[in-house]
Amino acid sequence: MTEKIAVLGAGSWGSILANLLVENGNDVRLWSYNPKQVEELNQKHTNVNYVSNFTYSDKLVAYSDLKTALVGAQTILFVVPTQAVRSVAKQVNTAISELGIKPYLIHASKGIEENTYKRLSEVLTEEIPDTKRKAISVISGPSHAEEVAKKDITLVTAASEDLEAAKHTQDLFMNNYFRVYTNDDVIGVEIGAALKNIIALGAGALNGLGYGDNAKAALMTRGLAEISRLGTSFGANPFTFIGLSGVGDIIVTSTSINSRNWRAGNELGKGVPLDKVVNEMGMVIEGLTTVKAAYELSKIRGVEMPITDAIYQVLYENKDVKTAIRDLMQREGRSESMDLN
Amino acid sequence: MTEKIAVLGAGSWGSILANLLVENGNDVRLWSYNPKQVEELNQKHTNVNYVSNFTYSDKLVAYSDLKTALVGAQTILFVVPTQAVRSVAKQVNTAISELGIKPYLIHASKGIEENTYKRLSEVLTEEIPDTKRKAISVISGPSHAEEVAKKDITLVTAASEDLEAAKHTQDLFMNNYFRVYTNDDVIGVEIGAALKNIIALGAGALNGLGYGDNAKAALMTRGLAEISRLGTSFGANPFTFIGLSGVGDIIVTSTSINSRNWRAGNELGKGVPLDKVVNEMGMVIEGLTTVKAAYELSKIRGVEMPITDAIYQVLYENKDVKTAIRDLMQREGRSESMDLN
Repeated sequence: MTEKIAVLGAGSWGSILANLLVENGNDVRLWSYNPKQVEELNQKHTNVNYVSNFTYSDKLVAYSDLKTALVGAQTILFVVPTQAVRSVAKQVNTAISELGIKPYLIHASKGIEENTYKRLSEVLTEEIPDTKRKAISVISGPSHAEEVAKKDITLVTAASEDLEAAKHTQDLFMNNYFRVYTNDDVIGVEIGAALKNIIALGAGALNGLGYGDNAKAALMTRGLAEISRLGTSFGANPFTFIGLSGVGDIIVTSTSINSRNWRAGNELGKGVPLDKVVNEMGMVIEGLTTVKAAYELSKIRGVEMPITDAIYQVLYENKDVKTAIRDLMQREGRSESMDLN
Repeated sequence: MTEKIAVLGAGSWGSILANLLVENGNDVRLWSYNPKQVEELNQKHTNVNYVSNFTYSDKLVAYSDLKTALVGAQTILFVVPTQAVRSVAKQVNTAISELGIKPYLIHASKGIEENTYKRLSEVLTEEIPDTKRKAISVISGPSHAEEVAKKDITLVTAASEDLEAAKHTQDLFMNNYFRVYTNDDVIGVEIGAALKNIIALGAGALNGLGYGDNAKAALMTRGLAEISRLGTSFGANPFTFIGLSGVGDIIVTSTSINSRNWRAGNELGKGVPLDKVVNEMGMVIEGLTTVKAAYELSKIRGVEMPITDAIYQVLYENKDVKTAIRDLMQREGRSESMDLN
């Protein structure tokens, strides 16, 4: 299957997915808000501030005008930062009306909207009415863009409430190094994708504090259990959290020193104050806003999330990190099976 | 709660668990078949061939005579190698009759008996009738002995069909650095504990072949899915595989270069022949027998286990490893959610 596809957002993940879609035989237009980046992509076929040392296909064309990028698009892939999804979706809604197209929507962003605590498919649904588009899918899983660029093996999940749309996404992306599994649980995939950054922060902090592999594996496992509890309270299928967008993504994000959230946690664990970590990283650390969202959601939903609570208290209520860990360890003995259901 | 406890098997894990039980206030007797090791433990309070640079409590007493070690035992903890469980259990059965004790049985071994393909609680049940003992529990989870020795944080699962016995095990082991969750799913805990070594072999092989984090996380996730499928075919609770003895142990074993199975896989991935890897390691590589057992069980149970099949074919049918990976990647596109149920 080949299609005309607009990819919105030219960060590492957007650019590499756009290139993969070109390699799969599609006609792909990559949109960036940044004219300099567009010029670099079109003239040099590079995107140095994201995946450096990689040459993109010369068939990949970049645009800085959103409407032009959308002309004739059968599928629109959103890979813009979480907090920009709503404003870009508003512009897309206007443009697709004017262009008279009715595309599939896919997103590959990971996060929860600040203040509203909405998942990204909810944001897209609110901004682009279903009469003007086909079904929405989300693609997620353990996938460092740099490794996909090298054609290293990567497996991801494509989820949609409409299984035909999930299969459409699977068909677009799947090739001999990128394997796509369909799933019908959009809620579970989106919540897993967003909340894994909390676990990555925590795993980094344990490393910075000098803890070993047992503690990190325990954090990932019990973190997964509480993410699963929150997800199922929203109607997610608990099995989704055992899949690529759940535990798979937690593993890759929490064991890789290349993960931004892990590195921030590591600095915090070493005792560097939060404001200094944020300044020195010079990039958005998504886990910091996700911890807030998950903490608030857990209170609203009445879901017990002791690890999220502890990280929230350390970050935002000046709780000493060693006291937080001691308190976690001194909770009363629990049943594992009851906890997970 | 303090008790008289016999710990059978003085490898790394047995010795460190025995020491932990001493620290928790119990009267602990550690049995080893090796008189030299017993002498070393009693005189120098060390066990250099296992966890070196560690001094054991002088309250921990070692014995080379099994019956003497069992005198008055309220609990017996088996930590002998998988393939020795049956013969030790036979001796225990005779001794407890003679001593007139009716102890709890706990085991902390990880594997499946060769040829019979039985789980270790099944072996114990067959050799020690339930009239002569209290209920059997299994303790498992992400737990490098070296880190427990350092009082690093560790979380494990204690499973028994009898929840009172699981709680008894929890009470014996739990302290401020070792946290124990109860679980009623013995089948799931034992199958997860045994089969994780297959994934560790595979993760090592991917590393040796030069693959990155995406591929390893995908292997762990999809490996977990097929272990879960096999386990549920035996009546395991699928949620167990999302827990400490499932994904937790897979993470610690498959991401640590200290894991014997990971190292064996890494050598195989670099192209070293199997017999040479086995010779050079000079230790039992449990994953090698587990792959055979899991492969046979998957055929008997009619459960699809493509990763296990691929590793089996590479190890025992001379299949080229790159061809095996290519074949795995070229399977038809799947649904993730259906696969996991």
